[in-house]
Amino acid sequence: MDQIEHGRLRVAIEAVAPEIDGGRHPIKRVIGEKVVVEADIFADGHDALSAVLKFRHAQSADWSESPMSPLGNDRWRGEFTVQRIGSYRYTLEAWVDHFKSWRNDLQKRIQAEQDVSVELRAGARLVEETAARTNGEDAQLLRAWAKEISTGDPATLPQRTQRALDNAMAGLMAKHPDRRFATRHAAELCVVVEPVLARFGAWYEMFPRSCPGRATAHGTFKDVEAHLPRIAEMGFDVLYFPPIHPIGSAFRKGKNNNPLCRPGEPGSPWGIGSAEGGHKSIHPELGTLKDFRRLVQKGRAMKIEIALDIAWQCSPDHPWVREHPEWFKKRPDGSIQYAENPPKKYEDIYPLDFECDDWRGLWQELKSVIDFWIEQGVRVFRVDNPHTKALWFWEWMLGEVRGAHPEVIFLSEAFTRPKLMYLLAKLGFTQSYNYFPWRNTKGELTDYFKELTRTSVREFFRANLWPNTPDILTQYLQYGGRPAFMTRLVLAATLGASYGLYGPAFELCVNKAREINSEEYLNSEKYEIKDWDLNQAGNLTDLITRVNRIRRENPALQSNDHLEFHTVDNEQIIAYSKATEKSDNVILTVVNLDPHHVQNGWLALSLDELGIEPANAFQVHDLLTGERHLWHGARNYVQLNPAFVPAAIFRLRRRIRTERDFDYFL
Amino acid sequence: MDQIEHGRLRVAIEAVAPEIDGGRHPIKRVIGEKVVVEADIFADGHDALSAVLKFRHAQSADWSESPMSPLGNDRWRGEFTVQRIGSYRYTLEAWVDHFKSWRNDLQKRIQAEQDVSVELRAGARLVEETAARTNGEDAQLLRAWAKEISTGDPATLPQRTQRALDNAMAGLMAKHPDRRFATRHAAELCVVVEPVLARFGAWYEMFPRSCPGRATAHGTFKDVEAHLPRIAEMGFDVLYFPPIHPIGSAFRKGKNNNPLCRPGEPGSPWGIGSAEGGHKSIHPELGTLKDFRRLVQKGRAMKIEIALDIAWQCSPDHPWVREHPEWFKKRPDGSIQYAENPPKKYEDIYPLDFECDDWRGLWQELKSVIDFWIEQGVRVFRVDNPHTKALWFWEWMLGEVRGAHPEVIFLSEAFTRPKLMYLLAKLGFTQSYNYFPWRNTKGELTDYFKELTRTSVREFFRANLWPNTPDILTQYLQYGGRPAFMTRLVLAATLGASYGLYGPAFELCVNKAREINSEEYLNSEKYEIKDWDLNQAGNLTDLITRVNRIRRENPALQSNDHLEFHTVDNEQIIAYSKATEKSDNVILTVVNLDPHHVQNGWLALSLDELGIEPANAFQVHDLLTGERHLWHGARNYVQLNPAFVPAAIFRLRRRIRTERDFDYFL
Repeated sequence: MDQIEHGRLRVAIEAVAPEIDGGRHPIKRVIGEKVVVEADIFADGHDALSAVLKFRHAQSADWSESPMSPLGNDRWRGEFTVQRIGSYRYTLEAWVDHFKSWRNDLQKRIQAEQDVSVELRAGARLVEETAARTNGEDAQLLRAWAKEISTGDPATLPQRTQRALDNAMAGLMAKHPDRRFATRHAAELCVVVEPVLARFGAWYEMFPRSCPGRATAHGTFKDVEAHLPRIAEMGFDVLYFPPIHPIGSAFRKGKNNNPLCRPGEPGSPWGIGSAEGGHKSIHPELGTLKDFRRLVQKGRAMKIEIALDIAWQCSPDHPWVREHPEWFKKRPDGSIQYAENPPKKYEDIYPLDFECDDWRGLWQELKSVIDFWIEQGVRVFRVDNPHTKALWFWEWMLGEVRGAHPEVIFLSEAFTRPKLMYLLAKLGFTQSYNYFPWRNTKGELTDYFKELTRTSVREFFRANLWPNTPDILTQYLQYGGRPAFMTRLVLAATLGASYGLYGPAFELCVNKAREINSEEYLNSEKYEIKDWDLNQAGNLTDLITRVNRIRRENPALQSNDHLEFHTVDNEQIIAYSKATEKSDNVILTVVNLDPHHVQNGWLALSLDELGIEPANAFQVHDLLTGERHLWHGARNYVQLNPAFVPAAIFRLRRRIRTERDFDYFL
Repeated sequence: MDQIEHGRLRVAIEAVAPEIDGGRHPIKRVIGEKVVVEADIFADGHDALSAVLKFRHAQSADWSESPMSPLGNDRWRGEFTVQRIGSYRYTLEAWVDHFKSWRNDLQKRIQAEQDVSVELRAGARLVEETAARTNGEDAQLLRAWAKEISTGDPATLPQRTQRALDNAMAGLMAKHPDRRFATRHAAELCVVVEPVLARFGAWYEMFPRSCPGRATAHGTFKDVEAHLPRIAEMGFDVLYFPPIHPIGSAFRKGKNNNPLCRPGEPGSPWGIGSAEGGHKSIHPELGTLKDFRRLVQKGRAMKIEIALDIAWQCSPDHPWVREHPEWFKKRPDGSIQYAENPPKKYEDIYPLDFECDDWRGLWQELKSVIDFWIEQGVRVFRVDNPHTKALWFWEWMLGEVRGAHPEVIFLSEAFTRPKLMYLLAKLGFTQSYNYFPWRNTKGELTDYFKELTRTSVREFFRANLWPNTPDILTQYLQYGGRPAFMTRLVLAATLGASYGLYGPAFELCVNKAREINSEEYLNSEKYEIKDWDLNQAGNLTDLITRVNRIRRENPALQSNDHLEFHTVDNEQIIAYSKATEKSDNVILTVVNLDPHHVQNGWLALSLDELGIEPANAFQVHDLLTGERHLWHGARNYVQLNPAFVPAAIFRLRRRIRTERDFDYFL
């Protein structure tokens, strides 16, 4: 700030929140959500201040304003609601409000029975100055008022004093404040506004080539089309496919990641590119581009979005290797550098060289891939290993795509170092994978979800919780059997407004790993086509369906904003609640984390947080089993049997005062 | 950042600390201190990184660099020492280090017994590229090395591999890194470097007109000159005077702030300005400007700085009122607006109007006052009520003065709202008054000093602890008698590297307030000349002298950097330690906060923090009483009698291993 120019701006604005890294990165909201902004606002001395929160949609030049209110200790708060997709700007403005100070002081003087005749003239002067800046009726009213309070013989002083405190006039003054010396917060902050699916959704991952009920050896988009109603019935919002592009044959991996591939083995969908095309082509055995577009439309009609996997890497057979050798690193022997994690070598994968001289050309081509699939109707992308690609590429690419298509959603597959994972979210990814798969104990889950929901992380990082993926079969699932799958399903679906399953393997509780201490599936679907029998005994289809229905019927589970943990005197039982902002929907989830034993304990609810009066009984209605219990007070007994259902998802129903009603729980 | 231009900069730098409000404000250090800088530094992928901390004195165009090291979880740390007064800039730079990656990978490949012949050629290529950017001997060495490792028949591979890992060559490569795509931290940060007195000093406040031992009714600078040796002997570094300017007579306040002033009453020194002059003049009864300059020089010779009080306010008789009526607010009746806190009126004080049209002229004049006193030799200023003057004025004024006179120190009298108090520190005040006077219980003291020393506050806010001032006689002192004064003295002098006393009243344990629930002294020196008899029985002169000597002899007490609180099982006893960075000087202070009763309890020391091995006995040497105790282990008994001394200031002396030495404690 050039102090010598701004010497008369007396107000300081500090510690604005939310503000990510000093405004370097935007915060995130979905349509209809509030942005609540707080800041330290103060000036020298003891004058009264006024402050406004300014906001505008990025496509509008005009600022709207909402007033901010003091919370005590110089902290102020204001809010606005984001009504349109895209992005908004927000900032703050505050000023010394001489009229407000004058009015406060006048009240004190009156109370002390001082002569206020000179003060009334001082007030009238402020009102006249305001009238001079104002037009029309307001100006007339103010002028008349100024005259009224400042002129007249001493006998009229009591009436004039009364009139000076007129609320309507104070309102008129507040409407036309003197903001010549207002301080504007130095940063113009940004909030990216996305569709509700960015916050709330259930994802189902499947390999279309293994689509159940298919007619031929290799599943097709048409098979998936026939399968769609089942996915819809289970209550999923997104159907996500691993890469659907032609698969290379050079160094193709066989079953169980065998470096030797036997003839006829299909290869990994992540080995992208062959003579038949690259990232803008479809693996011929899956069908045609037309089939794909049709599937996308069919899905949308059933409220299912098809999500594509974006993996920026190439098989040695990818057309880019031939057409753009400059986008790859060369080894001293002239060959192209394959992927490595020394001493491991991945000769079937060529990474793109983001440090190459033609990085601009590379960036444009990669973006054109996204544009291509958006043209085909895709609105949801899952990005493979974004943490191994240039960081600012993502910021640029996501910004460009979002500028043209603000409705498009990107899920980042970033199982990586925490700071890098968070930066990818700041750079524009809508959602992210995260450490949920490896948070299994009560302490681990509590700490992690407090970090995600109670720190500034909540402003830019949206977790999508996956108990399993084709790459991740956790030890907890390997050794916990069916109860472990139920537990992790309930945790994912109730702790996270967004969650996903690697579907068929999860429905069937597949839990054999390739080897001890590995999280790879035995006979992984990544390298072979699977024949899933989804009607197999013990499948979790009904439970998943029920859980998804509970999520759709209870808005509390559709956001992570009001997550509270409650105490249980048993380390194997975790309890937490979610509530809507007005607490008109409250869900209490209690989960037995021990897949092997019945566990019980005493739950100590924070009734305050739940909006329950300690004196009144309340009903807890287990939406999984349908059972209802009448509870009273904070301390309640819970027992959960993993052999049956290791969790309860209680809807809390508060008592209605009139007991004459039969159904008196709300 | 323009991403499209910086696409190849792969490293992100985040969460830099210290960095106050995104670099908006500088941090503070004194000469010889270290600046330890940490940041999150990471890139996409798995390549090795290198990072440097860059720093330069503001008057130098050339950056120096010191290497940063990883601490784990992508956190890096580096440091530099500030050797010159003034200000330094610092920032960070980090880059992907391909040679480091190559070398790490080579080691893994060798361990896995892979053929590395192509890898050696890849390494040689990196070395050759470096040689091409380099001159002289280094370039020759690198070229020879590249040739050596990359050429030769297969039989020489083991020797060449060995040679490739040569440390000297790796050092040479680190000396010439490829920093084309280095990321520079966006902000250039600032550290203000001040003299040691900014961190460590004991202040003594006195009214020169009440100087003990004076010849006439009104004390003079000459009297103070005679008094200086006593102040020096007591161990004070700063002798601070309330305003020394001519005192106005209009609305002059009488004894005990009486609105009616009797003839001959001297008035308050804060009623500045009369026909005899304003802020650049000296109250005639104190002496001449020449006397004052002489006093400043005499003081400096005894290592005492004279501190002046800067109060930007005027008596109605101040020359500015006549010469610059535009710097004051007018009331509607044409009179000048006096100070008010409605319904209270302070008609003897005219505040300056920082919103006036000629604010630039006002700022310049105020700054010229500081410049004037600096010309007279003053190096230390205490600023009265800075929180009622324009904030950016301070930033500008302190910046300008410090630019020309970086050795000058400003103490802010900001007993105000915490955020405003901190902002004044950020804007450039060297030190600040604070809430110490009202923090009396163990919990209050512990919480407050943790806030001051363990949060980012420590980087910009230096507390100067005053148990009393002419305005503040706390209830604790009023009701606790002499033991309360001893307790607060020890707390101030050991919790704070800087502390101060309103001297005569403190030495004599003056504790009569004007009325109940008031912190004003009865017969306050602000409104009358006092005849202090400093030899009165019960005076604290010896204790103060001893405490100041302990502070000078123990570097641990000269900084607040390593303050630790220790547990005592008695709420009335507080225990804390301070240590030098290398723990070669450790002071443990134990204080009885109850001025009325003997208190005892068990102290549980954090031996780890104190650098003491639990197995070894250690000596605690009470520097107040001279007593020595042999302690063993964390748990030790303490008892403190307020009637004697309510505190112990222990120097910890660790055992030296050779027990043959008689004096085996260090």
